[in-house]
Amino acid sequence: MKFLVINGVNLNLLGSREPDVYGSGTLKDLEDMLRKYSADSNFEVEFWQSNIEGEIVEKIQSAQGVFDGIVLNAGAYTHTSVAIRDAISAISVPCVEVHISNIYKREDFRHESLIAPVCIGQITGFGFNGYKYALDALYSRKGA
Amino acid sequence: MKFLVINGVNLNLLGSREPDVYGSGTLKDLEDMLRKYSADSNFEVEFWQSNIEGEIVEKIQSAQGVFDGIVLNAGAYTHTSVAIRDAISAISVPCVEVHISNIYKREDFRHESLIAPVCIGQITGFGFNGYKYALDALYSRKGA
Amino acid sequence: MKFLVINGVNLNLLGSREPDVYGSGTLKDLEDMLRKYSADSNFEVEFWQSNIEGEIVEKIQSAQGVFDGIVLNAGAYTHTSVAIRDAISAISVPCVEVHISNIYKREDFRHESLIAPVCIGQITGFGFNGYKYALDALYSRKGA
Amino acid sequence: MKFLVINGVNLNLLGSREPDVYGSGTLKDLEDMLRKYSADSNFEVEFWQSNIEGEIVEKIQSAQGVFDGIVLNAGAYTHTSVAIRDAISAISVPCVEVHISNIYKREDFRHESLIAPVCIGQITGFGFNGYKYALDALYSRKGA
Amino acid sequence: MKFLVINGVNLNLLGSREPDVYGSGTLKDLEDMLRKYSADSNFEVEFWQSNIEGEIVEKIQSAQGVFDGIVLNAGAYTHTSVAIRDAISAISVPCVEVHISNIYKREDFRHESLIAPVCIGQITGFGFNGYKYALDALYSRKGA
Amino acid sequence: MKFLVINGVNLNLLGSREPDVYGSGTLKDLEDMLRKYSADSNFEVEFWQSNIEGEIVEKIQSAQGVFDGIVLNAGAYTHTSVAIRDAISAISVPCVEVHISNIYKREDFRHESLIAPVCIGQITGFGFNGYKYALDALYSRKGA
Amino acid sequence: MKFLVINGVNLNLLGSREPDVYGSGTLKDLEDMLRKYSADSNFEVEFWQSNIEGEIVEKIQSAQGVFDGIVLNAGAYTHTSVAIRDAISAISVPCVEVHISNIYKREDFRHESLIAPVCIGQITGFGFNGYKYALDALYSRKGA
Amino acid sequence: MKFLVINGVNLNLLGSREPDVYGSGTLKDLEDMLRKYSADSNFEVEFWQSNIEGEIVEKIQSAQGVFDGIVLNAGAYTHTSVAIRDAISAISVPCVEVHISNIYKREDFRHESLIAPVCIGQITGFGFNGYKYALDALYSRKGA
Amino acid sequence: MKFLVINGVNLNLLGSREPDVYGSGTLKDLEDMLRKYSADSNFEVEFWQSNIEGEIVEKIQSAQGVFDGIVLNAGAYTHTSVAIRDAISAISVPCVEVHISNIYKREDFRHESLIAPVCIGQITGFGFNGYKYALDALYSRKGA
Amino acid sequence: MKFLVINGVNLNLLGSREPDVYGSGTLKDLEDMLRKYSADSNFEVEFWQSNIEGEIVEKIQSAQGVFDGIVLNAGAYTHTSVAIRDAISAISVPCVEVHISNIYKREDFRHESLIAPVCIGQITGFGFNGYKYALDALYSRKGA
Amino acid sequence: MKFLVINGVNLNLLGSREPDVYGSGTLKDLEDMLRKYSADSNFEVEFWQSNIEGEIVEKIQSAQGVFDGIVLNAGAYTHTSVAIRDAISAISVPCVEVHISNIYKREDFRHESLIAPVCIGQITGFGFNGYKYALDALYSRKGA
Amino acid sequence: MKFLVINGVNLNLLGSREPDVYGSGTLKDLEDMLRKYSADSNFEVEFWQSNIEGEIVEKIQSAQGVFDGIVLNAGAYTHTSVAIRDAISAISVPCVEVHISNIYKREDFRHESLIAPVCIGQITGFGFNGYKYALDALYSRKGA
Repeated sequence: MKFLVINGVNLNLLGSREPDVYGSGTLKDLEDMLRKYSADSNFEVEFWQSNIEGEIVEKIQSAQGVFDGIVLNAGAYTHTSVAIRDAISAISVPCVEVHISNIYKREDFRHESLIAPVCIGQITGFGFNGYKYALDALYSRKGA
Repeated sequence: MKFLVINGVNLNLLGSREPDVYGSGTLKDLEDMLRKYSADSNFEVEFWQSNIEGEIVEKIQSAQGVFDGIVLNAGAYTHTSVAIRDAISAISVPCVEVHISNIYKREDFRHESLIAPVCIGQITGFGFNGYKYALDALYSRKGA
Repeated sequence: MKFLVINGVNLNLLGSREPDVYGSGTLKDLEDMLRKYSADSNFEVEFWQSNIEGEIVEKIQSAQGVFDGIVLNAGAYTHTSVAIRDAISAISVPCVEVHISNIYKREDFRHESLIAPVCIGQITGFGFNGYKYALDALYSRKGA
Repeated sequence: MKFLVINGVNLNLLGSREPDVYGSGTLKDLEDMLRKYSADSNFEVEFWQSNIEGEIVEKIQSAQGVFDGIVLNAGAYTHTSVAIRDAISAISVPCVEVHISNIYKREDFRHESLIAPVCIGQITGFGFNGYKYALDALYSRKGA
Repeated sequence: MKFLVINGVNLNLLGSREPDVYGSGTLKDLEDMLRKYSADSNFEVEFWQSNIEGEIVEKIQSAQGVFDGIVLNAGAYTHTSVAIRDAISAISVPCVEVHISNIYKREDFRHESLIAPVCIGQITGFGFNGYKYALDALYSRKGA
Repeated sequence: MKFLVINGVNLNLLGSREPDVYGSGTLKDLEDMLRKYSADSNFEVEFWQSNIEGEIVEKIQSAQGVFDGIVLNAGAYTHTSVAIRDAISAISVPCVEVHISNIYKREDFRHESLIAPVCIGQITGFGFNGYKYALDALYSRKGA
Repeated sequence: MKFLVINGVNLNLLGSREPDVYGSGTLKDLEDMLRKYSADSNFEVEFWQSNIEGEIVEKIQSAQGVFDGIVLNAGAYTHTSVAIRDAISAISVPCVEVHISNIYKREDFRHESLIAPVCIGQITGFGFNGYKYALDALYSRKGA
Repeated sequence: MKFLVINGVNLNLLGSREPDVYGSGTLKDLEDMLRKYSADSNFEVEFWQSNIEGEIVEKIQSAQGVFDGIVLNAGAYTHTSVAIRDAISAISVPCVEVHISNIYKREDFRHESLIAPVCIGQITGFGFNGYKYALDALYSRKGA
Repeated sequence: MKFLVINGVNLNLLGSREPDVYGSGTLKDLEDMLRKYSADSNFEVEFWQSNIEGEIVEKIQSAQGVFDGIVLNAGAYTHTSVAIRDAISAISVPCVEVHISNIYKREDFRHESLIAPVCIGQITGFGFNGYKYALDALYSRKGA
Repeated sequence: MKFLVINGVNLNLLGSREPDVYGSGTLKDLEDMLRKYSADSNFEVEFWQSNIEGEIVEKIQSAQGVFDGIVLNAGAYTHTSVAIRDAISAISVPCVEVHISNIYKREDFRHESLIAPVCIGQITGFGFNGYKYALDALYSRKGA
Repeated sequence: MKFLVINGVNLNLLGSREPDVYGSGTLKDLEDMLRKYSADSNFEVEFWQSNIEGEIVEKIQSAQGVFDGIVLNAGAYTHTSVAIRDAISAISVPCVEVHISNIYKREDFRHESLIAPVCIGQITGFGFNGYKYALDALYSRKGA
Repeated sequence: MKFLVINGVNLNLLGSREPDVYGSGTLKDLEDMLRKYSADSNFEVEFWQSNIEGEIVEKIQSAQGVFDGIVLNAGAYTHTSVAIRDAISAISVPCVEVHISNIYKREDFRHESLIAPVCIGQITGFGFNGYKYALDALYSRKGA
């Protein structure tokens, strides 16, 4: 089994960006942690990051027939992108939405996710661990 | 006379994307149909598709002085992009908005088009035929 | 095949009513143009106009089993009449909504159509030509 | 380490209540699964269910100094109870919010959680597995 | 056939509570009237009243497999309780919503019923007689 | 005693109009049922249907001094007609609002009745039986 | 000079309809008063009343080239009719809006007039005298 | 009989202020016209203008027992001053609200008058003549 | 004279609950202070606390004929309970609403009290002293 | 200790202004009562009233370093004046908001106080006594 | 060239008022700085401050024909005064809006300026320097 | 000192795009003017333009440690891009928001800037000069 982890806009700055909100781990730290986690499990993980909405759309499109699930932290595009929502609807690969911080503790405009209604579920507020739960959720579902 | 047909985000997936909503024809099918339709008429058609909002903006900008009209299906950017709206306002080439599905039968957030007020008109719900009517509307207008 | 073209409230004034918005053609001009268009095609057209909401409801009701499609420009009732919407839902004859002007360029209260969600599609902003596209859409659908 | 799992209103009906939404496992099945999961880990779990808002408030109050974390599925009270929110704020025990179904796929009034802003995070849409992730999140946090 | 009549919060005060709104009959008067009405018909009626939201939830839950229908006047919980709504959805026993006063003549917040969309229907404004119509509606439905 | 039953817009289509919503009985079936019901009771019933808002207004006006009560199913005008509301306020004949389907299970715009605040009460969701309850409510009130 | 006084829906009931709101004078009383007022002045007045929205539309349409001004009390249609608004916009005869009662002292939905923005002005709250001021305003304007 | 005409904020600029909206007559022209009008009638008029909300409040207060009616054009304070509304409510002198321009043709925030609900009526859109109608309305009322 | 002091949900935690918001005094401290205050005055005070909405409803109901006034701090139920509001309306014992913190300095959802419109008045922001003012207000009213 | 009691707009009319809302006591009665109350206590009181928003702003500004607290009934400016709010924020003298009537029983626009969030607390509905509680609250705070 | 700098409500307190928001410079410091800045340039500056809305209106009115531009910091009246907006519209002197703090970082009600749409432009967030940019903008415009 | 001037979407069209709104100067004209301005001062300026939201995000990210300030005119992305807002928050380089036209004179959707709350300040309506003020504001701040 093979999962795709997509990190969206500004997530390349992890570690330096508002560390009190996002923690001090870098994107590489996150990827290392998840690579290790997948090695201990029965699935592969591939990582990809982009700051461009349309590229994220195309990456999601390309997952069809290649990956068994997507873990998606779209960053700020979560709240503004109907295009990403439509890309998820357009494929049959299941998707899990993750946020590092608890978006419900922050500004009002971060409380609405345009993506959540087309994902299996949403995990928010658990730092990097949220990605592990997301992978596990995809794996359990497929494995069931 | 020469018209530009722009298909926006996720429309490269036509045929495989939610076929009950968008039909089973592919983007190539659409282009072939329109190429044939233009061949029977007195105008040329050029096709272009992109998933990236800013590239669509630039394509619209570049139509000035080159094309006599634009047929635009911006996909999900219809509902979120002030940038595309501004690009249409910035040029003097007339633009017609097209949607394959009837956007007024779908989710509430698809009922508002940021682009409609700066286009000549809007055609929604007639599948691929909508593009034909759009081309005809541009042609009639120019031809009048 | 036989289609019914219904023009609603204030459309009997076409030609004299706000010509910068609706053009200078009269209702008779419109009907003549469409009669000619249908003569060139394989279908018949019948015309009917009323300013009374309830009469439009009844005309729509009466189309069941008699017409193969309805082209409807309900005028101002587009934005206020649940009754006309319900009449369209009550019959199985397909209906296309047409507006001469681009309603999305005008006052906010003209941006919402109560009728659009129960029609096949909507055409707005192309003057009298919109009716031709509507007839063609009904014909294509039936002919398919 | 010792965690309290609170299930709120109507969750005693798990298994028989809208199985297409909540699955066919019973509350006992859920508790057995979590008991087994905790046995494999380094923490204890205690279970409690109530349909009465005020009793849930009191149970949360009583966790202070007794439990190291709370997993809370408040059911419908999630969307209406400022009282439960205040109880969580009143104690220093960390709380994780869980929902079996993806609340963002359902009615609009289920999209707002009054509780989320005072919890560490929220997990929604993963069936019974959501509780496991919640326990793991509490455990990781404490263990760090 | 056996029906359950649930009266919710503050309805134990019938007769003394705002008699110009609710009339001067007591809860016992209501029950006597309905008992007599059921005796004249082919069904049994059981009565139950509670001021506690969670207890009403549990009473509704317990009706499954025991009663053939529920007549529910939830009082003020009508406008605030998602929990009671969920309880009705959770069982297959049909439910009819009743209000003694015409809630649409009163404060705006009484115009919305969270319960109405999951009931067969709603009867409001006919005093105690509303309960009779509700029982009759359940009976007709079952008897049909 | 003599009651007037007014059926409004599109209700002449009963039986053929969306039968899954309104049932398969025709308007004549409804009238026959109610005529029989009134014959078994101590009152007369008169029936009237119109699709035109202004005619319904005039029929309500004409009831003054002639009828002892009105049963009104205004159809779609329920949600848009201040004129019908004003007609009811203008006379002293009591009016009961009836709907065949449960309007609270349908589109949001059907949840508001402009008429309910000036009627004795509202009955919604019980098919043709709702008219019987309405007649009974008028009769009980007069007979009291 | 010749003015048309249009009274809309329910205004045929003047005198008997909610006399504390509309006064005890009948429609005939109003017309007599205005006929006398016009006799003392240099203009003629014609009266017309209808309860049907579409007929009012047509009467307004027919004023073009016949009358020098319209005094319009559309009754409840003031708040719901885009059709009447469009009819006024469609002709070049100036129109003054009148209300007998002060609509700003009444229900919120009576505070918005769809007609006011296309009239010269609005007069509300002065009983029958409002019509006199309206006629005078038309006369002054024409006479200026 | 003696009436007070209060002109509020920015009305001292009449004649020079946006003449296409307010006309070219000055405040003195208005006062001369009304003085002449009152001389022809059976009442006296006193004029007063201020740009300060609190002074307008005090002038209104001082009218009690001194004047038989107030004609008030509060200018921009119409839309923002609860204080002026309260002053009118605090006295028993009847008040008529006047606006020179048709406020319903202008910006949305000018469509709401905080003062209208506590006045006898409102006159808007008839230039200086509106003040004459207002005086007449006060006079008719008193004279009746 | 005898007054009932009701403390609602989470107020049993006074002293330990968010002391920067609610202060460090316990519920017992509050009761002792008020007992002493009443001893210095001419009235008796009885105390009662509950976390359950329905029990608070019943306690309020039971005050009829037993107490001369109620001091009510409903806690979070202030903002969500129509049931408590109805209970206050159902009895003739006057009620005063108290809050320890200034609710208008806190989250938006705490700014609306469903209870305030049916109480004599509201006191918010003065810590435990607010209860003293409330008792005094009841006493003054009765003593007047 | 020395407190300033500011009464705002229209409060000079106390006694004659809507006595059913504000009581029959005059402003002088209020001041006499409070002067007596302060004489019995350990503080001085100074009184000031104005109808002009800007003067109230300046009076509040001038309290800095002169008074130990302000009791403020801003009247209608409570709901419209950001300027008064800013003046309170600009000084360090504590302020208590008082209203004679229960503002939550009145029109919706009186339910929001722009001032409350920058005051210590709010007292509403207790007539003149509210001012006494406000003085006591300031005194207790300072004396603590 | 001669410019008028108007500072509105509470700006006389600069230096002592919330120094973390507005800085520690006084109004005199601001005026000295701007006087020096104008001396280095080719224009004169005059200063004026008031806390009274109506006086600011009158000062703006009086600038007509006397000043070549106005720099306006209306303070809190920015968000509530239609009267000041109208005064700016009433004259032909260009006006620039300035705020010392960034109003978009503060409370929501400070995000809307009623004045901005009738000014040349708005400068917010640059402390006293904003006034310099405003003067320069007026000067550049005139000098161009 | 070194500043980065970012021009966003459609600003490459300056000079040809709606010249009545944006003026007739080109992007090169703007850059030349600012280069000259910086040469006269003590700082360097670098220019960059893009139509792609994600590229603007990345450019802002890359400014960290390289530039002392950013002048940002994001064009239409101002109103829709949470991503750009987050990028500004993610770095410690101060940012000033500039608009050539007065956005508060234009469509409502241009009145809200998602970026303003994370910038030092905003300058709108002064054409190209706004960029000079922005540079000066950054320079003053750094130089202070």
